[in-house]
Amino acid sequence: MNYTDKLKNIVSKNKSNLVIGLDPDLKKLPDMFLKYKNPVAVFNRLIVENTKDIVAGYKLNSAFYECLLEEGIVAIWHTLNLIPEDTIKICDAKRGDIDNSAEMYARTFFDDYNFDSVTLSPYMGEDSVAPFIRRKNKFVYILALTSNKGHNDFQKLKVGEKYLYEEVIDKSMKWNKDNNIGFVFGANHTQEIQNFIRANPEIPLLIPGIGAQANDLENLMKSLGTNENFVINSGRSIIYSSAKDCNENEFIEAVRTGAMKLNEEINVFKKYN
Amino acid sequence: MNYTDKLKNIVSKNKSNLVIGLDPDLKKLPDMFLKYKNPVAVFNRLIVENTKDIVAGYKLNSAFYECLLEEGIVAIWHTLNLIPEDTIKICDAKRGDIDNSAEMYARTFFDDYNFDSVTLSPYMGEDSVAPFIRRKNKFVYILALTSNKGHNDFQKLKVGEKYLYEEVIDKSMKWNKDNNIGFVFGANHTQEIQNFIRANPEIPLLIPGIGAQANDLENLMKSLGTNENFVINSGRSIIYSSAKDCNENEFIEAVRTGAMKLNEEINVFKKYN
Repeated sequence: MNYTDKLKNIVSKNKSNLVIGLDPDLKKLPDMFLKYKNPVAVFNRLIVENTKDIVAGYKLNSAFYECLLEEGIVAIWHTLNLIPEDTIKICDAKRGDIDNSAEMYARTFFDDYNFDSVTLSPYMGEDSVAPFIRRKNKFVYILALTSNKGHNDFQKLKVGEKYLYEEVIDKSMKWNKDNNIGFVFGANHTQEIQNFIRANPEIPLLIPGIGAQANDLENLMKSLGTNENFVINSGRSIIYSSAKDCNENEFIEAVRTGAMKLNEEINVFKKYN
Repeated sequence: MNYTDKLKNIVSKNKSNLVIGLDPDLKKLPDMFLKYKNPVAVFNRLIVENTKDIVAGYKLNSAFYECLLEEGIVAIWHTLNLIPEDTIKICDAKRGDIDNSAEMYARTFFDDYNFDSVTLSPYMGEDSVAPFIRRKNKFVYILALTSNKGHNDFQKLKVGEKYLYEEVIDKSMKWNKDNNIGFVFGANHTQEIQNFIRANPEIPLLIPGIGAQANDLENLMKSLGTNENFVINSGRSIIYSSAKDCNENEFIEAVRTGAMKLNEEINVFKKYN
């Protein structure tokens, strides 16, 4: 099954456009996890086991696993094994390299780990994306307009009549022969999201920046209208919602409540669109 | 010691501006390495042990290690441990992410592995670079104008009077308060390298694209003039210069000869500048 169908199916089945960002920082994990040999594997397991019926998927940012070295690799395997087959697995890798290196990354994230999709940075152009989209049932989200302050430095530069991020979108759409390219828009860019969706209703968006980055969910949801081809990523505000000295039940309760609450808010706003 | 001094010292000591790209692909390794538990660690060891007196440093592209999973991490450790303290260790990671993720990458590559420098992709702007350059004795090479075909897609777009890659350089130079930012230019962009060096003679360049990517060394060296603040990376043409069925001595001989020959060519061209 291709990615866009898989995405539609899970959004419909779990009534959820929510993706939980599994970005585990050892310094922020509740103390109870530190007794385990691989704290992050247990932390992720409890999150996945207790939210998998109310999310569209999970996004693992590679930065948080690489810094754990071998333990990070084990934690990724453990986590991916627990995520149901019909649920979206995104690796937030933001890679971008020449063809032979990009092929190695594609092999790692798609062929080996079996992620469904990765995020890519567009700066090096078409041949840095090609090895990923050659895997036709896999999917890439290319960075368009990101949520951080630094998005102003280059993404909003004017290239002729367009912004650079619009040029990134236009060029990427030309590479999108197999319908396996989507884009990352930060939740703060509601007007740009609305413009994009009007022109490209079928192209999936990955939208981070709700939660710890504290953008306005209501405005975001208005900009999405009746579109269903999006996932909203929220990480820190869900996975760190318990007290540092919580026990296992309190942790589970806090995480499930946090995820459920955000998912319900998204669904309520969708009804009014 | 800061990076630019370290670079000058090793270039002078070893009479070399050559960096060997350690990008080991299991499919291309001579057969003799496949009998080892960690073929890449042994492959890299033989290269480092037999070239360390004639190079400025080594560049490890993270793509080629990540695809080996745990073995890749072990191979990085083994390799870095063999590289002399005064020799440059570059991680070609091309990362670029929001501040808290960038901090995790900086921790991994700088604090943990103890690389001297990393390559970064500029698309996400200042806060994606900040955690790296906050480590003042560490160094980043920001992608400016890359060697691949895809450099035309975005890097050469006109932003007002300038190209995007020039805008990347100008903005990055403003962040360069601690003199720990340099740039990546592909070896094919000789005119642009010459222009850059005339305006910024003190800023270190990392120049890939000599060897397997088959660009013209003579033209490149002319564009560098009397500048010394550069390293030329060559990987595949050196590390795969032996036959697939070679023995250990033949491998060592081929690699050392390949590295020495390229280094001597660079030095001969330098004399005429």
